[in-house]
Amino acid sequence: MATIGDIGLAASINILTAFAFLLAFTILRLQPFNDRVYFPKWYLKGVRSSPTRSGTFLHKFVNLDFRSYLRFLDWMPAALKMPEPELIDHAGLDSAVYLRIYLLGLKIFVPITLLAFAVLVPVNWTNNTLELESAKSSKLEFSTIDKLSISNIPSGSNKFWAHLVMAYTFTFWTCYVLLKEYEIVASMRLHFLASVKRRPDQFTVLVRNVPPDPDESIGELVEHFFLVNHPDHYLTHQIVYDANKLANMVQKKKNMRNWLDYYQLRFERNSSTRPTCKTGFLGLCGNKVDAIEYYSSEIEKLSKDEVEELNRIKKDSKSVMPAAFVSFRTRWGAAVCAQTQQTRNPTLWLTDWSPEPRDVYWQNLAIPLVHLSVRRLIIAVAFFFLTFFFMIPIAFVQSLANIEGIEKAVPSLKPFIELKFIKSLIEGLLSGIALKIFLILLPTILMLMSKFEGHISLSSLERRAASKYYMFLLVNVFLGSIIAGTAFQQLNTFIHQSVNEFPKTIGLAIPQKATFFITYVMVDGWTGVAGEILRLKPLIIYHLKNFFFVKTEKDREEAMDPGSFEFSSSEPQIQLYFLLGLVYAVVTPFLLPYIIVFFCLAYLVFRHQIINVYNQEYESAAAFWPNVHGRIITAMIISQVVLFGLLSTKLAANSTPFLIALPVLTIWFHRFCKNRYESAFRRYPLQEAMMKDTVERTREPNLELKEYLLNSYINPVFKEVDDLVDNSVLDEEEFETVLVPTKRSSRINTPVPSKHASDFSSTSLPEVTLHDRQL
Amino acid sequence: MATIGDIGLAASINILTAFAFLLAFTILRLQPFNDRVYFPKWYLKGVRSSPTRSGTFLHKFVNLDFRSYLRFLDWMPAALKMPEPELIDHAGLDSAVYLRIYLLGLKIFVPITLLAFAVLVPVNWTNNTLELESAKSSKLEFSTIDKLSISNIPSGSNKFWAHLVMAYTFTFWTCYVLLKEYEIVASMRLHFLASVKRRPDQFTVLVRNVPPDPDESIGELVEHFFLVNHPDHYLTHQIVYDANKLANMVQKKKNMRNWLDYYQLRFERNSSTRPTCKTGFLGLCGNKVDAIEYYSSEIEKLSKDEVEELNRIKKDSKSVMPAAFVSFRTRWGAAVCAQTQQTRNPTLWLTDWSPEPRDVYWQNLAIPLVHLSVRRLIIAVAFFFLTFFFMIPIAFVQSLANIEGIEKAVPSLKPFIELKFIKSLIEGLLSGIALKIFLILLPTILMLMSKFEGHISLSSLERRAASKYYMFLLVNVFLGSIIAGTAFQQLNTFIHQSVNEFPKTIGLAIPQKATFFITYVMVDGWTGVAGEILRLKPLIIYHLKNFFFVKTEKDREEAMDPGSFEFSSSEPQIQLYFLLGLVYAVVTPFLLPYIIVFFCLAYLVFRHQIINVYNQEYESAAAFWPNVHGRIITAMIISQVVLFGLLSTKLAANSTPFLIALPVLTIWFHRFCKNRYESAFRRYPLQEAMMKDTVERTREPNLELKEYLLNSYINPVFKEVDDLVDNSVLDEEEFETVLVPTKRSSRINTPVPSKHASDFSSTSLPEVTLHDRQL
Repeated sequence: MATIGDIGLAASINILTAFAFLLAFTILRLQPFNDRVYFPKWYLKGVRSSPTRSGTFLHKFVNLDFRSYLRFLDWMPAALKMPEPELIDHAGLDSAVYLRIYLLGLKIFVPITLLAFAVLVPVNWTNNTLELESAKSSKLEFSTIDKLSISNIPSGSNKFWAHLVMAYTFTFWTCYVLLKEYEIVASMRLHFLASVKRRPDQFTVLVRNVPPDPDESIGELVEHFFLVNHPDHYLTHQIVYDANKLANMVQKKKNMRNWLDYYQLRFERNSSTRPTCKTGFLGLCGNKVDAIEYYSSEIEKLSKDEVEELNRIKKDSKSVMPAAFVSFRTRWGAAVCAQTQQTRNPTLWLTDWSPEPRDVYWQNLAIPLVHLSVRRLIIAVAFFFLTFFFMIPIAFVQSLANIEGIEKAVPSLKPFIELKFIKSLIEGLLSGIALKIFLILLPTILMLMSKFEGHISLSSLERRAASKYYMFLLVNVFLGSIIAGTAFQQLNTFIHQSVNEFPKTIGLAIPQKATFFITYVMVDGWTGVAGEILRLKPLIIYHLKNFFFVKTEKDREEAMDPGSFEFSSSEPQIQLYFLLGLVYAVVTPFLLPYIIVFFCLAYLVFRHQIINVYNQEYESAAAFWPNVHGRIITAMIISQVVLFGLLSTKLAANSTPFLIALPVLTIWFHRFCKNRYESAFRRYPLQEAMMKDTVERTREPNLELKEYLLNSYINPVFKEVDDLVDNSVLDEEEFETVLVPTKRSSRINTPVPSKHASDFSSTSLPEVTLHDRQL
Repeated sequence: MATIGDIGLAASINILTAFAFLLAFTILRLQPFNDRVYFPKWYLKGVRSSPTRSGTFLHKFVNLDFRSYLRFLDWMPAALKMPEPELIDHAGLDSAVYLRIYLLGLKIFVPITLLAFAVLVPVNWTNNTLELESAKSSKLEFSTIDKLSISNIPSGSNKFWAHLVMAYTFTFWTCYVLLKEYEIVASMRLHFLASVKRRPDQFTVLVRNVPPDPDESIGELVEHFFLVNHPDHYLTHQIVYDANKLANMVQKKKNMRNWLDYYQLRFERNSSTRPTCKTGFLGLCGNKVDAIEYYSSEIEKLSKDEVEELNRIKKDSKSVMPAAFVSFRTRWGAAVCAQTQQTRNPTLWLTDWSPEPRDVYWQNLAIPLVHLSVRRLIIAVAFFFLTFFFMIPIAFVQSLANIEGIEKAVPSLKPFIELKFIKSLIEGLLSGIALKIFLILLPTILMLMSKFEGHISLSSLERRAASKYYMFLLVNVFLGSIIAGTAFQQLNTFIHQSVNEFPKTIGLAIPQKATFFITYVMVDGWTGVAGEILRLKPLIIYHLKNFFFVKTEKDREEAMDPGSFEFSSSEPQIQLYFLLGLVYAVVTPFLLPYIIVFFCLAYLVFRHQIINVYNQEYESAAAFWPNVHGRIITAMIISQVVLFGLLSTKLAANSTPFLIALPVLTIWFHRFCKNRYESAFRRYPLQEAMMKDTVERTREPNLELKEYLLNSYINPVFKEVDDLVDNSVLDEEEFETVLVPTKRSSRINTPVPSKHASDFSSTSLPEVTLHDRQL
């Protein structure tokens, strides 16, 4: 096992790497030609424009102002400077609340660390159990770090009361912080929703599984159903079409246009020879043709096909899905419809809040509802296999991290490995990185699985993928590392020992694994976060795209588009640190400072990234918080169970039974929070709806809501094809009539609200207490 | 362990007991003076009246018509004769659906038994593993029944494929039957709700946790809130008072009146001496006074106190609870309000369907909502301790059932116990009865616990108590019997054997326990059911009451009141048979016929009881079915896990892994059913509400709904005191004004509907498809 020295070496390597990344970042970000990679958010907001307008040619690419290099750490205070309300305005509530997860980590772990170092470390250190035990038997190995851990307390000692009291203190503290945070986030969300300007999703409900009727079309059915059952509130509806084929065409055309741009740029730069290409598979085989002509004609053909397909979709009743976006006259009507059951059969006429237009995942709207239940079963089984069969390679990698294991397996390597430096290097670096490589591919797979499950909004997809990823990390990184490692080391004694020895073995394995997890925190946490700010991959991709494809300003905007931050992969990783921190808080407090460093660094980096880089695709108003909260609760319960198992092996018969109450209290706390706050994230209270409706009616008595809502939920693919029709004037008589409504919409999904509405909403309206107004 | 002979003896004893009970019943029920005990339902319906009106004195008490004794088994076909729709009319949907649970048992187990005896019994019988094993080691004991069980298959045999295939077949069959049954019950419930006549609970929502306001009373607050937030639908509301003190007074007065009646009757029969009594504790100490005078004056004093208390309640704002029954103009409005969240804070202005007036548990309405969460935690912990510390006596009783154990413990008893007859008697009878005694006290405790939890309707109290009882039976009767028994027998080898032997021991214990459970089914099931029909306890109590207290016809009605059948204790017991049947279906099919006999007998007996005896207090429209369904699913999963554990110890490496899919499929099936059917039991679809509203508006355009609803939700205690005021003409001016609304109400909680309404509802209205009506 690793000693303090090994950890020190690993730490220095990781600190150096992280520092190198940060240094590279500070230099690269000052170069004007990288400006669009490191500050895209400001370009997209229109605040910043290319620095190429002024200065010499060299100045366009390299920053020669040496004074700016002296202030290379400026980004850190700058990232912290922006106050939270401004941050919400700038980047949305999702991002602002996401940052609070890191703050939450600090709030939980800084006091816990102080307390643990003040109480538990001295209690653990003043024993010599491990020395005695290892002198007795050569089977058990231990490291210097274990001396600081609970392993060093002799069995049956009364000192375990200290750990018990600390376990209770830590639990109560964590619960307290969680409760406060849930309260704050819930009120932030409610305040955000209350002060937000008029949005179509406030009036709209997504209806799914409209039962087919031989006599009426889906549109007529929907209209009649809601006119009958919500007579005073129904306003209008928009039908959902199965436009997946059209979406594929649009995507294909976009690719072709990229190639066209590429060849045109090449021809401009070297106009002596016209570029050619092959028409076959991947451009590797087939006839050689003039590239520009070929792609131009292909694009033209595709454009015509698109318009035809659009016509077919609008005419063919088979492409109408049994779903619709139904809009109501009032927010009250929509809130009622979204929260109630419509018919006897709860699987027909299913109503739920419609996601924000930007948030809709259009492809999945075309999935019939009957498939969903089967799809979910398939994914559940597939995910189970993915999670548990993935453990085999992890266990193998894990075993490599154990120097003694390798030496036994390949004795010839022994002299080489035994070199002090090499040994530390392998242990400190290799194991963490190997695990990391496995994990890089995973989020994409999990997102695909979630999409297959058929969720209809991007935000719910992200949340589902995050849940899966968390499960995976829990089983494979946490449990997998503990159990596989133990199995490899002690497999022999494991099978043949008697029943009462069994939990003891597990109990001893947990503190032993502290070293591994410290290394993991450094590699995955510290270096990973520093790598995040460097943005090496987007940097390279941007410059490649900029060189090959970019012709217009719009192309450049597309090339620099940073996308959203990846909630689905980064949130579960934070959760792993919460888990490690809570599990080891009582067992091996030595791990806690590493986690605090991670939370500090990550908070700083992500705040910078959210301010300067990421451009949130949608706004779910922090709908993910109940998941975040629930996972921290899970981590608490795991930590309590682990501690219980550990103490029961230590013959601490006096104190162990008192631990049983902890998980019970924690679960009760979870239910309390769920009752108290979760509905703020799932439902929309009628009082709020009525209040906003009343205020709006007073301020804008003549508002034409129907017109406002008419085109809010139109598949963006239609709009794209529609623009094409506008531009190329392909219109025919009948086509014109079909598309009339669509033409009025702007390119932006969320239509710009009327001036009054935005005025009213930005001055976050005063709390109107209803009891004062006697109607 | 018991042999087939032992089982045979136990069976004959139990059959004889059951037969004796049935015989006693057939004779007793024919006696006219028992008529009110065995047919109270008909008296309460007014169809039957006392047979004392005609005939000689002797005829009043004893049935001398010998022909009627010859037809003593008539009650069986009579119980089966009444068709289900008539049964629903006669006894309510709850009772009719409750009977379906027994039918469900037959539907599941008859085909399973046939299949198991056709396939598994021959497969098990044609081996001699147990003989070989017991020859090898004297540690393991087995019985003849085990030869028919899975224990008799040699380890690693390919014959386990038969058990695997059967496990799948049984699971699919059970799921299929469950699905069909859920569908039928859901449609029965919906049809019942749709065809039921107008009831106040269709228009009414219970609002809880109204936040206090310094300027307004609760009544004003409620009115203003709903006028603002449900302006088009709010009609009226009724405030909830904390009348628990008054309820205690009323109860006390009722007791006193009973004593008064008793002494008056005594005086009438023997008018020479006036009866006296002591005023102190339980009538055992204190001054000796004239009993009739004493009780008369006490009752008068109490009556005055009651009226004062009523006045105080109506005036004192502190006795107004922050809750109200809010009624709406339409069913649609009530359905909307019940299903939506009202304000930001989800713990304020909580709305839910109000229970039927008869179903309200008034005492709990006075509990502040903040206490509920703490109360539930306390009960959860208390229930945990009750469940797990109760195991100690059970384990002890269980150990008595093991003859060999007793012989080892008290060797001097050996010669006595070894007598063939005594041995069988102890094994067959004692163990089951001892367990039964433990269980008799339990339902009352669990009901008290549920009441403490603060549920506000009798039906939900019953459901909660049933859940607790089921948990208890599962842990103590099922798991407790298996594990404690095993521990006692094999404790020695248990602790010291190695890890891989551990599951084997458990696996072997399950088939070994078959004998015990067969005995249990016979004692608890057969004899218990036969005891149920005899109604020994109500019989005695009725005659005692009739002799001592009964003066008027009303008193007699109260004395014979049979109450509802006890869902909270009988349903979990049925569930235990489902569990035993499913667990042993594959392991020891020999147990199945005993369960089928139980289901047949119980169906017959309870159908008779529901038709002739029980008088349902309230109608929840089969709201308990999701619980019944869920528990059978739990039983299936337990049976699958047990089988998995068992097979894995049998080294059936080829077939065991295929069992993993079973629980996954079962859980998925459960979720499917939950999605599809559960909402029929929890929510009220808007379409149905709108339909009934529309029909009603057309038929009765001038209906005065407000008047109809005005007094529907008034605490019955108030009505009782109110009647008192009417009778004794105690009324004062101001009291009059307060009580005006109350005076109009009849004694029956559910007011008689107008003639039109009942006409319309009884002719179960034709399905109006909404799409046909173009508004």
